[in-house]
Amino acid sequence: MVDSLTTQTAISDNVYLLEEAYGLGKDVLGGKGHGLVEMTHAGLPVPPGVIISTRVCAEYYENGKKFPEELMPTVMSKLSVVEEKTGKKFGKSLLVSVRSGAPLSMPGMMDTILNLGLNDEVVQFLESSTNNERFAYDAYRRFIQMYGKIVERIDSKKFEGLIDKKKAAKGVESDVELNALDMKDLVNEFKQLFKEETGKEFPSDPKEQLRRAVEAVLQSWNGKRAVEYRRFYKIDDSMGTAVGIITMVFGNTGDNSGSGVGFTRNPSTGEKKLFAEFLINAQGEDVVSGARTPYSIEEIEERMPDLYAQLSRIGGLLERHYKDMQDFEFTVENGKLWMLQTRTGKRTAQAAVKIALDFVSDRMITEEEAIMRVEPAQLDQVLHKHIDPEAHIDVLVRGIAASPGAAVGKAVFDTNKAAELGKLGESVILVRRETAPEDIHGMIASQGVLTQRGGKTCHAAVVARGMGKPAVVGAESLVILENRAQAGDVMISEGDILTIDGATGDVILGAAPLVDAQISADLDRFLTLADRFRKTGVWANADTPQMVAKAIEFKAEGFGLVRTERMFNAKIRLPYVQRMIISSSTEERKKWLEKLKEFQKRDFYDIFLAAKGRPVVIRLLDLPQHEFLHAPASPELGDLIAKKLPSLKEDNPMLGHRGIRLGMTYPEIYEMQAQAIAEAKVAVEAKGIEVQAEIMLPLTSEAKELSRLRELIKRILPDSPVGTMIETPRAAVTAGEIAKYSDFFSFGTNDLTQMTFGMSRDDAEGKFLVKYVEEKILPNNPFEVVDKQGVGRLMKIATEDGRLQNPKLEVGVCGETGGDPESIEFFINEVGVNYTSCSPYRVPIARLASAQALIKRKATDGESKKYAASV
Amino acid sequence: MVDSLTTQTAISDNVYLLEEAYGLGKDVLGGKGHGLVEMTHAGLPVPPGVIISTRVCAEYYENGKKFPEELMPTVMSKLSVVEEKTGKKFGKSLLVSVRSGAPLSMPGMMDTILNLGLNDEVVQFLESSTNNERFAYDAYRRFIQMYGKIVERIDSKKFEGLIDKKKAAKGVESDVELNALDMKDLVNEFKQLFKEETGKEFPSDPKEQLRRAVEAVLQSWNGKRAVEYRRFYKIDDSMGTAVGIITMVFGNTGDNSGSGVGFTRNPSTGEKKLFAEFLINAQGEDVVSGARTPYSIEEIEERMPDLYAQLSRIGGLLERHYKDMQDFEFTVENGKLWMLQTRTGKRTAQAAVKIALDFVSDRMITEEEAIMRVEPAQLDQVLHKHIDPEAHIDVLVRGIAASPGAAVGKAVFDTNKAAELGKLGESVILVRRETAPEDIHGMIASQGVLTQRGGKTCHAAVVARGMGKPAVVGAESLVILENRAQAGDVMISEGDILTIDGATGDVILGAAPLVDAQISADLDRFLTLADRFRKTGVWANADTPQMVAKAIEFKAEGFGLVRTERMFNAKIRLPYVQRMIISSSTEERKKWLEKLKEFQKRDFYDIFLAAKGRPVVIRLLDLPQHEFLHAPASPELGDLIAKKLPSLKEDNPMLGHRGIRLGMTYPEIYEMQAQAIAEAKVAVEAKGIEVQAEIMLPLTSEAKELSRLRELIKRILPDSPVGTMIETPRAAVTAGEIAKYSDFFSFGTNDLTQMTFGMSRDDAEGKFLVKYVEEKILPNNPFEVVDKQGVGRLMKIATEDGRLQNPKLEVGVCGETGGDPESIEFFINEVGVNYTSCSPYRVPIARLASAQALIKRKATDGESKKYAASV
Repeated sequence: MVDSLTTQTAISDNVYLLEEAYGLGKDVLGGKGHGLVEMTHAGLPVPPGVIISTRVCAEYYENGKKFPEELMPTVMSKLSVVEEKTGKKFGKSLLVSVRSGAPLSMPGMMDTILNLGLNDEVVQFLESSTNNERFAYDAYRRFIQMYGKIVERIDSKKFEGLIDKKKAAKGVESDVELNALDMKDLVNEFKQLFKEETGKEFPSDPKEQLRRAVEAVLQSWNGKRAVEYRRFYKIDDSMGTAVGIITMVFGNTGDNSGSGVGFTRNPSTGEKKLFAEFLINAQGEDVVSGARTPYSIEEIEERMPDLYAQLSRIGGLLERHYKDMQDFEFTVENGKLWMLQTRTGKRTAQAAVKIALDFVSDRMITEEEAIMRVEPAQLDQVLHKHIDPEAHIDVLVRGIAASPGAAVGKAVFDTNKAAELGKLGESVILVRRETAPEDIHGMIASQGVLTQRGGKTCHAAVVARGMGKPAVVGAESLVILENRAQAGDVMISEGDILTIDGATGDVILGAAPLVDAQISADLDRFLTLADRFRKTGVWANADTPQMVAKAIEFKAEGFGLVRTERMFNAKIRLPYVQRMIISSSTEERKKWLEKLKEFQKRDFYDIFLAAKGRPVVIRLLDLPQHEFLHAPASPELGDLIAKKLPSLKEDNPMLGHRGIRLGMTYPEIYEMQAQAIAEAKVAVEAKGIEVQAEIMLPLTSEAKELSRLRELIKRILPDSPVGTMIETPRAAVTAGEIAKYSDFFSFGTNDLTQMTFGMSRDDAEGKFLVKYVEEKILPNNPFEVVDKQGVGRLMKIATEDGRLQNPKLEVGVCGETGGDPESIEFFINEVGVNYTSCSPYRVPIARLASAQALIKRKATDGESKKYAASV
Repeated sequence: MVDSLTTQTAISDNVYLLEEAYGLGKDVLGGKGHGLVEMTHAGLPVPPGVIISTRVCAEYYENGKKFPEELMPTVMSKLSVVEEKTGKKFGKSLLVSVRSGAPLSMPGMMDTILNLGLNDEVVQFLESSTNNERFAYDAYRRFIQMYGKIVERIDSKKFEGLIDKKKAAKGVESDVELNALDMKDLVNEFKQLFKEETGKEFPSDPKEQLRRAVEAVLQSWNGKRAVEYRRFYKIDDSMGTAVGIITMVFGNTGDNSGSGVGFTRNPSTGEKKLFAEFLINAQGEDVVSGARTPYSIEEIEERMPDLYAQLSRIGGLLERHYKDMQDFEFTVENGKLWMLQTRTGKRTAQAAVKIALDFVSDRMITEEEAIMRVEPAQLDQVLHKHIDPEAHIDVLVRGIAASPGAAVGKAVFDTNKAAELGKLGESVILVRRETAPEDIHGMIASQGVLTQRGGKTCHAAVVARGMGKPAVVGAESLVILENRAQAGDVMISEGDILTIDGATGDVILGAAPLVDAQISADLDRFLTLADRFRKTGVWANADTPQMVAKAIEFKAEGFGLVRTERMFNAKIRLPYVQRMIISSSTEERKKWLEKLKEFQKRDFYDIFLAAKGRPVVIRLLDLPQHEFLHAPASPELGDLIAKKLPSLKEDNPMLGHRGIRLGMTYPEIYEMQAQAIAEAKVAVEAKGIEVQAEIMLPLTSEAKELSRLRELIKRILPDSPVGTMIETPRAAVTAGEIAKYSDFFSFGTNDLTQMTFGMSRDDAEGKFLVKYVEEKILPNNPFEVVDKQGVGRLMKIATEDGRLQNPKLEVGVCGETGGDPESIEFFINEVGVNYTSCSPYRVPIARLASAQALIKRKATDGESKKYAASV
């Protein structure tokens, strides 16, 4: 976070020429500004310019949006140096861009004004000096449009309407077909529109233009889109944006000019090869918006070998400087290459893994650095579903594969509608001609994105990749109309089901069968590397032999939670379960339990076989009884259940007669389960396969519960470790006593969170919890990311007290947060667990997160001892 | 607790003559034995005897009920000294009683055998030496009966049946009318019965009798009745009983003999005057069982002035020795007085208070000791209801006022039935001819007890007083038959409603109107004395001006919990509340809130007036919304509610959208309440009456909730302290942060207990919780007595962390445990609260408990510093 200007740091200390600012960080210069400063320092061709530091923005908001008096004089004085360097004069020939630049990348989220400095005089100078009248007036009309939109909030469509009218009048289809005169007309019409909308003339004084533009950029930091983006990515609101005022270079002066974006290597696959797109006679925004389809890197190499060679050389320089893959923007003005921006490039998980491994091979980074290069959550992408390769599918259209993974959902053409339906839990594919920052909330709420236009670096592609959502872009044969789309003679209406595959670019009408991903050889190598850096176990929660097998494929080392409730719910067993529950005597109950035992024995047998000797922690029944009586298995049972139901009904079943309390009142149930485990164990061991069964009791709140039932289980399974879930706050604060009767603890963070907050997940998530997270009352949904202050503190107390009483105590986590990277780091570094256990598909994520946690701790331990105290 | 004989302490060190044991405690000698030893030492007439220490009993159970080989030889050797002293020979003329004697009084709970040593020879010696054949055979048949019952578990009714048969055959009504021959017959019939039941002869060897009797007494420690009694009174099971073997003296040798019980002062009123009852020609058991009505103290004084004088002198000696009111048993054998037992006498709360004050006046005890003399929970008695003096009642019969307070309930004649119905929550009056230890579970479950027979010291009276339950005994004009009772020509059947008044002895058919008690002048003096020894506030929970006034009558110093939900529930307000809840916009909601504000303003106005300047902590709405929609206030509302209901339904309302969460989503509700408070405050202050309103927010789990709503409230009520309930575990563990925005904490132990255990009170109490307490999984119902290990630890964490951040933080308790003496002691001495708040009727109890807590801490602090660590 940036220190604010509480003591009125002089403005003059916060405005820099690019060449003056080397050594300052992104927190001060913003990401873009920092890149320009670094590139300037490295001797790359960067247009001269001025950066206003983020501190000015922070102060602007702290002072209630008061624009600092001294800012513009300081900026103008710096700008005079730029005038010298360029030989151009602001207000005469020097045009600038005014851009935002946040410390963390927020692509397209804030406002930028190009061509600033133009007026009726300057445009003539521009025309004469470039000898390109059309270019000059095109620049001028673009400037008026952007300025009007950003500074005066004039709806951009109104300007577009005038262009469309002009094109219609001329009978042409594309902007390029409009000539200089048309542009001149448009300038006048735009100025007229500006006056109608604002009640004042378009400002002709470039200094006034600049002042207003700088303020608009500052204001864009708190624009709706920017705030939404920061919320989604959990970026601190107080950082503020820097403002860059950079000499304009033009990619649209003719066919010897153009603009492009590039990646130093392939951001989708990680392939070690320059990746760029270039649009002739265009400004950068034309490339990013995807309105025209640019030259691919192959086309650049073939048609513009010089440019390709320059970009390759610069790419290499950038990678060596930054020691990471870079994403850059460039413009060619009348044949001269200018670098406009560089930053660490966003990439798919697959690319992130390959790049990290390649950088290690090239000895550019250490193994630890490589492990830290991949966001664990991003791995979810690689483990995304794809279309079943065995399935017969009819590809409707094929677009550009922009963000991997396949998604199925209802086609929705309106962003707001998509956002609405998505919030209601509907699976939606957002289908747009192209996306813009305004579409961000719709993209967040969708399963995937499909666009008609754009390339791999267009807005939709970049944002979708960042979010880990499947995206297909540039599906040009899809014609998108208002609320429907046409693909050949097929019409897609709102609500029609589509499948998209962001790895192939395929678009299919209807729901294609999806299958789960396998781990690639690169990812396997990468995770095996990560395994070497972790010391805590990664176990899986699995209730079936299939889940056990899947988890082993992902290299789970044990099974931290094998629930037995689901087994009870199978249709064939339900009559017995129901009869057992409504039994009116222990004898009767035992009779039905005897039947259930045979089922359970088979379950455990299959799971032990699948687990191949790995530890299997079986949680005995946590059965909210009435839940099993909803649907009587026969009319006769219906009558019996109806009689029993009133006495079983609970006002708050979450806090009712469940878990170990059931074992206390009906010990015969746990006795049956222990017997089934014992018999299954013998049967599997008879096949020469080791069985490590551990018995876990749910919902303990008092040590005596455990001491009593531990004895019962130990009678049947003398060699099996017996432990307990820690999922009531009381278990946590009396853990010292409980540890006397436990071989292990396993934190059930779902229930523990519910009880610690006094908040039922089901009742909270649909209601106030969303608001709590949105309004930052809570930093996260505590059911997804562990609540460190509350639940986490209880976990620390429990672990510390438990180990004090029982130094051999094993401690694990098997709640949903056991698969969340941020939570895993806390569990390992703050709670000190021995293992975490999560759903099979999150095992790779947990392996990486566990390694990163240890690497972070080592780094911090080396640096200072503060870390432990800071949480 | 007694050290057990783990290292095989010699038996010889654990058997004492009465005169050898002076200086040993009740823990070793049992209460009875201790009394006999003390009286022997004081030179009072005590029959010689031997005491087997409690350690022998403890060892007996530790060794799996193995009777120690060396015990009987040791006993016999001591008994030879008794033979010397009495000039009698065991097996020839010496008869003994074998009695249990626990360290804590458990009246009638364990077994006693009298007249032990009798056989066909000894009875003849007894006959010839007393020259009373009837007496001798009566003693013999009693012995066979008791021995048969206690040692061989022969049903007593079988013996009684033989007596009834004999009386019927003779055409007589009372046992006294049976002559010596009849008794001889009965001895033979009893021996025959004994043989039929056991398959063996009645043992004629007195040594064998003694050995079996001692073992039976040891076994009675774990008899059903004894275990139940200990559970009710929370007495440690491991203490064990002593066994007394004491020379028999006979109150039934003729009209110059008799037995009696006495209290050194009146146990009902505390009046400083000897209180005794005496039954001529009877053994002690006849007095205690209440089978015949004894002479009152007035009758003794009039008819037996010598006995009266002796008892008076001895009573004085006992009080000076024990510095407390004593309860004693005595027998007159042929004109000679023998003291058989003394112990601290049970008394009503009223008596306890008066006796404590009188002892202070007489400078026999200090003020602190006086305060410690009254059990706070016992005060509940004094505050028991009585029959409205204004009401017209028809007294059906009048009995002896045996235990104060009035009760209304269904007449039930069977103990087991009463226990059953009582557990189901029915109000029951247990109606019995007389009660016996077998009836204890029925008494526990009843509202009150009514007996046909017995005096103020009969079993029913003593036990009911101990339990603080209303009792009327000796209602002789009530004839109790099987399952019904006749009073004149009125027949009372099972289920008929009765009212009893244990302070007057009145029995009324039907439900008489009951009113609450006032505080007596004695109690007022006593509590005022106690107030001087406490430092923590005693506040009350009150929702109405009436409750506020009642609490002030009991000297509540503030109001720790004024709930606003109940106000909302009034019929006239319900339509507005319902419309408010189903409002679909903030504007609409505000409209209905505006109406509700007027009601609330009036509520607060009345409460502020009644509180007369005392602090009033108003808890803002904790409204489970759907609870208010059960009964639509109109058909139109019914339709509207039906539509809204599905979206309000919660699976676990306890963990749902309630408390401060409601304030977060609908701040306008709390805003309205704050406005109503502000306006009411102004109006009351305008009358010259001070208002100390404090605002309390419910169910906080995160500091930011509080910081936001505190701001809202402070805008409207800038001078009012704003604080929070601590009732979620998360609030407790994040209390440091929460304290930054709180002027006070108030522990809501009900919700805190529910969430800490993960146990809903409603769902638990009817189901597993009873079993948990019965089986000692938990020491108490944690909703009644605070759970120190779990909930208590959270309270300590919260208080410590809270005060660290905010040294001015006031901490209180307003949950139900705030009125429980054991909990209050913990809150004051372990948590360090500033005040406790409870229902108005428990304010006197809380005042006393708070004083006692401080006195105990001082005593412990003086003694050692261990106390704090021991919990």
